[in-house]
Amino acid sequence: MAGDGRPVCVFDSGLGGLTVVRELMEAMPGEDIIYLGDSARVPYGTKSLQTVQRFALEDASFLMRHSPKLLVVACNTASAAAIDILRAKLDMPVIDVIRPGAQAAVACTDGPIGVIATEATIASGAYVHAIAELAPERQVCSAACPLLVPIVEEGRRDDDPIVLHVLGDYLGRLQRFRPGALILGCTHYPLLSGAIAKLMGPETELISSGRAAADRAKEFLDSQPASSRTGGAGTLKCFTTGAPERFAHLGQRFLGRKIDNVAFVGTDELETR
Amino acid sequence: MAGDGRPVCVFDSGLGGLTVVRELMEAMPGEDIIYLGDSARVPYGTKSLQTVQRFALEDASFLMRHSPKLLVVACNTASAAAIDILRAKLDMPVIDVIRPGAQAAVACTDGPIGVIATEATIASGAYVHAIAELAPERQVCSAACPLLVPIVEEGRRDDDPIVLHVLGDYLGRLQRFRPGALILGCTHYPLLSGAIAKLMGPETELISSGRAAADRAKEFLDSQPASSRTGGAGTLKCFTTGAPERFAHLGQRFLGRKIDNVAFVGTDELETR
Repeated sequence: MAGDGRPVCVFDSGLGGLTVVRELMEAMPGEDIIYLGDSARVPYGTKSLQTVQRFALEDASFLMRHSPKLLVVACNTASAAAIDILRAKLDMPVIDVIRPGAQAAVACTDGPIGVIATEATIASGAYVHAIAELAPERQVCSAACPLLVPIVEEGRRDDDPIVLHVLGDYLGRLQRFRPGALILGCTHYPLLSGAIAKLMGPETELISSGRAAADRAKEFLDSQPASSRTGGAGTLKCFTTGAPERFAHLGQRFLGRKIDNVAFVGTDELETR
Repeated sequence: MAGDGRPVCVFDSGLGGLTVVRELMEAMPGEDIIYLGDSARVPYGTKSLQTVQRFALEDASFLMRHSPKLLVVACNTASAAAIDILRAKLDMPVIDVIRPGAQAAVACTDGPIGVIATEATIASGAYVHAIAELAPERQVCSAACPLLVPIVEEGRRDDDPIVLHVLGDYLGRLQRFRPGALILGCTHYPLLSGAIAKLMGPETELISSGRAAADRAKEFLDSQPASSRTGGAGTLKCFTTGAPERFAHLGQRFLGRKIDNVAFVGTDELETR
């Protein structure tokens, strides 16, 4: 049976979605992936709902030119704001990060669930709603952690005293809540998972929304006849609306490997289609 | 002699420039001020030089419609990237924050000078160049402090243990350098000046670039015949490309008082002129 060589396309407001690409590459190493990081317009989290929906549609429309077999929305803000619109407007299976993250948490514990994310994602209530749909009685405790993204982007690591101090401040209430699972509801947080796990203790399972989305993507492709690419290792091609050198340099930490193939695409090119 | 009732116009990439407005209101309480905060496109610091120059020209062009007698560039990134272009293209006196900050530091100490600012401002070398032009032999030590802006925007204050911990991390090298003056080269930093002063000790004078720019603006107006508005207290009118309620709410901390008069202006409106 011939394989389906069309790529899996992924977009994010910037670099963070590369942690989702990393999970996709692990879950399905044979697939070609095309990534768009909208670094020129990052962050999405402080922008209005209408603006985020417009940006998400523009990002998706750009990727549609590459005829993907599946679109993955790696950005939590865009997932919360635009997933319904994207599904309504695109003739294409779309996987977001929020529902898979919520599903994985509900599946892994009968106990309370914690959520950490950016201010915008927490304010949207998206994880709380997704969990309530799956398990209406489940207790949920959320905490916004605005400093974690800049801390990761500054290059600080798990064992940095500042990281431990800031995490201790954010996680105090969650520690007392003793969740069975803690959703890492932001693409940047898996880079701090060592420190978060240490602070939360062994009774709390960490759920990476990116990994959950990658598992969901693999399930979807496996369920389709002839949906997987046949042959060797897949490729990764990246587009960024920011500076490609900066993207390739800073992106390595998120992807966990060197990034070779980055091209610039102007936001004007996204906006005019 | 009749006064000059035209406003002083100020722009910034977001809210931070309101600390400069605060200094302008203190230095010249009778002047009408019009402020544009480009919150929809914040931060400028991670964008390319060309993009920052374009944004600065768009911001300035919008303000030109209000026929100012003076334009103040409150944003350090825009000052570093676009001051020459703005002066060349506008038929208008323009004051930035970088040169006045450098002048104030050179005037206040014969010793070494420290500079703290965002990564982009430090990378631009703008303060180092401005000091070198004024005092070529002067020793300068710079430190980028990427977490301070998000820390201030999160609402953390001088006495927050996280603030002290992060500042301790950033200022260690500068403390050993024992500067006679430390330039606060970012609009957000005056909100942490208590903690910074405590860590640097009494031998280091803190220089607010915003206050230096306000002093420079007052000098300029005082030197012009009939340049000051006559009559009572001046007014403040704000425009933002982001959400006006968010601007009014978060802006209070930067301005040090309630903000009543905020209007929305779309970035499309800036771009099309």
